[in-house]
Amino acid sequence: MKDGDGVLALHREGNLLRVELNRPERRNAMSLSMVEALLRVFAEVEADPSLRILLISGRGGHFCAGGDVADMAGAAAEASDGTDPIAALNRRFGDLLQAVEGSRAAVIALCEGAVMGGGFGLACVADLTVALASARFRLPETSLGITPAQIAPFVVRRLGLSQARRLGVTGQVVDGREAVNIGLAHILAEDRAAADAMIRHSINDIRRCEPAALAATKRLMNRAAQADLAPTLDAAAAEFAGFARSEAAAQGFAAFLGRQPPPWAREDA
Amino acid sequence: MKDGDGVLALHREGNLLRVELNRPERRNAMSLSMVEALLRVFAEVEADPSLRILLISGRGGHFCAGGDVADMAGAAAEASDGTDPIAALNRRFGDLLQAVEGSRAAVIALCEGAVMGGGFGLACVADLTVALASARFRLPETSLGITPAQIAPFVVRRLGLSQARRLGVTGQVVDGREAVNIGLAHILAEDRAAADAMIRHSINDIRRCEPAALAATKRLMNRAAQADLAPTLDAAAAEFAGFARSEAAAQGFAAFLGRQPPPWAREDA
Amino acid sequence: MKDGDGVLALHREGNLLRVELNRPERRNAMSLSMVEALLRVFAEVEADPSLRILLISGRGGHFCAGGDVADMAGAAAEASDGTDPIAALNRRFGDLLQAVEGSRAAVIALCEGAVMGGGFGLACVADLTVALASARFRLPETSLGITPAQIAPFVVRRLGLSQARRLGVTGQVVDGREAVNIGLAHILAEDRAAADAMIRHSINDIRRCEPAALAATKRLMNRAAQADLAPTLDAAAAEFAGFARSEAAAQGFAAFLGRQPPPWAREDA
Repeated sequence: MKDGDGVLALHREGNLLRVELNRPERRNAMSLSMVEALLRVFAEVEADPSLRILLISGRGGHFCAGGDVADMAGAAAEASDGTDPIAALNRRFGDLLQAVEGSRAAVIALCEGAVMGGGFGLACVADLTVALASARFRLPETSLGITPAQIAPFVVRRLGLSQARRLGVTGQVVDGREAVNIGLAHILAEDRAAADAMIRHSINDIRRCEPAALAATKRLMNRAAQADLAPTLDAAAAEFAGFARSEAAAQGFAAFLGRQPPPWAREDA
Repeated sequence: MKDGDGVLALHREGNLLRVELNRPERRNAMSLSMVEALLRVFAEVEADPSLRILLISGRGGHFCAGGDVADMAGAAAEASDGTDPIAALNRRFGDLLQAVEGSRAAVIALCEGAVMGGGFGLACVADLTVALASARFRLPETSLGITPAQIAPFVVRRLGLSQARRLGVTGQVVDGREAVNIGLAHILAEDRAAADAMIRHSINDIRRCEPAALAATKRLMNRAAQADLAPTLDAAAAEFAGFARSEAAAQGFAAFLGRQPPPWAREDA
Repeated sequence: MKDGDGVLALHREGNLLRVELNRPERRNAMSLSMVEALLRVFAEVEADPSLRILLISGRGGHFCAGGDVADMAGAAAEASDGTDPIAALNRRFGDLLQAVEGSRAAVIALCEGAVMGGGFGLACVADLTVALASARFRLPETSLGITPAQIAPFVVRRLGLSQARRLGVTGQVVDGREAVNIGLAHILAEDRAAADAMIRHSINDIRRCEPAALAATKRLMNRAAQADLAPTLDAAAAEFAGFARSEAAAQGFAAFLGRQPPPWAREDA
């Protein structure tokens, strides 16, 4: 299996595949190249029934700090043939979330450090999400002048409308303990060693489950939970592109990069 | 902005509007006049983008003890042209819950004392619900011989079917701590001073969010959560009117006003 | 009311009916005969408005350890006229879950000991579920090479997709405390005496509720939560039959009965 130009570190052990997000210098920000590499991994998993369990984690103490702002700037520049390159980029991340959620294999996410934006979305689609107490989950999109467009439907399915809207509207940070309380994560670990032990234990639990029955159970449950997801994601991508091109988002990104408050963060704004 | 004949106390601070329910002698029971006043507030908010945050609370130590029984008696008397005045009254409260949930602005609810019936419904549609530990949340409708008709869909979306049905079926009281545990409220405060501090902090969080992105995020998430809400609410209003006119409800209201147990509250009833 | 050939023990007290699952030597495994007996009880409840509350528990320290493997083997043998006898058997359990969820009466479940498979499903449809701290909730299906087919939609509605999928995919055990935390149960009891006291208290709460209003509230909330349930259950029954006939399930049942690990529970399987 290819490692996607080094943005992923892959390591196979029997029927388990370890997938590490490998851009530690960017807190594993989800670049388009990383999205494509993950999509290739999930495509290969579907083609290889001997892969039964995926463990996704991040190198360098963070899971994933969100989308890569540089990609969005790049996509905006290359506008083309009538299709919107930012919407296409955004929708591609929705493809990844659908691929994870719909995967035949069991997917475990180990959440530590920053779990934000796209990383938050990934945490919401794993079958088993383990959170370190010190992890920091956040939807920072609205504070940047954009929306958690592809992520929103998965967050609503994971947390329910109430917590989803609260976190989307306030941009508040949730630690590992609260993540478990609100159903974002399933298992709380005090530190990385405890998390690793719990994951080993869970891998043994999953190995006791018959692979085709496991895949059918996921399908059954996903079907029970969902109205048509794909049209929702299509509409969300178009909306995202509009926001990402807006003056507000330009100000939000500039403020973020300059470590300044954006213009709307004033009492009378 | 008008204050709705004194049933609301309104106070603006920059992009924040404080809305106090102001019938403390009735524990802020939700009269039709109060519903209409709140609907006018939300209409003005939609028309004025400079209003970004609403804080709803109740005067006198209670949030809102429910619907106003007097209004229902009044509406029953004025039956008219084929439309059912009680259904119309009930549906109007559904309009309010939809207006709060769909508001462009971020809505915070400060829940203390009695949070019952319509008050419980309001707590379920706020973007951020802060609960005092001592607050008492309850759906008392079935014990009065009526149903939480307009409220039910919003309660189910907030709590899920399981807790919604349990609270509707048993009429049990939930305190602030349990309200946070079951997802009714987001933040627990030990007393009013702590709640005020948490709300100030949350207002700052919300001000960091770009207003149009915030509104779009709410829309996205509401859309992801809902089948068609309006037909559900229409049907519920008709059903409510039937119950409110029933002999059982007449007995329930009389028992409530007379502080007596209703006839059905016997082991063999 | 008949007791279904002794598989149920029924005891009426005023408007309360106590229903005990009565196969303690099999940890109250849900045989087809028990399913039919419970369906008769719920049919009689619908016909007799003086029955307002049902309390379901299990004799001998366990609630219900799941479906009865012997029945499935029996049904597989009698294949017939084009209809699939295993699918019919499975779908019948879905009928029961629908009957419990849709019952006019308030249904309380007292969960102790093993609450697995079909027992887990029953716990998910009661209006009020009381869990002993020592209870063990589990979906063991995938570890047997089958799927929680009829149960899955009710588990998703109870727990949300996230916890439902985690428990379906890992087969992990949840104790009473975690069952309350994830919304599977509503009330935690440290021991049986505490559970009995809480149930007496809750029965009094329910008696204060007007019966027709209670039934209408359940209908309203069920309707608000559900897309069309029946087609989902039909499809799930067909899928279940396929799995139950599979070589994997035969191995799973044999491993279960022989207390051996199944062939897929190896690192490289």
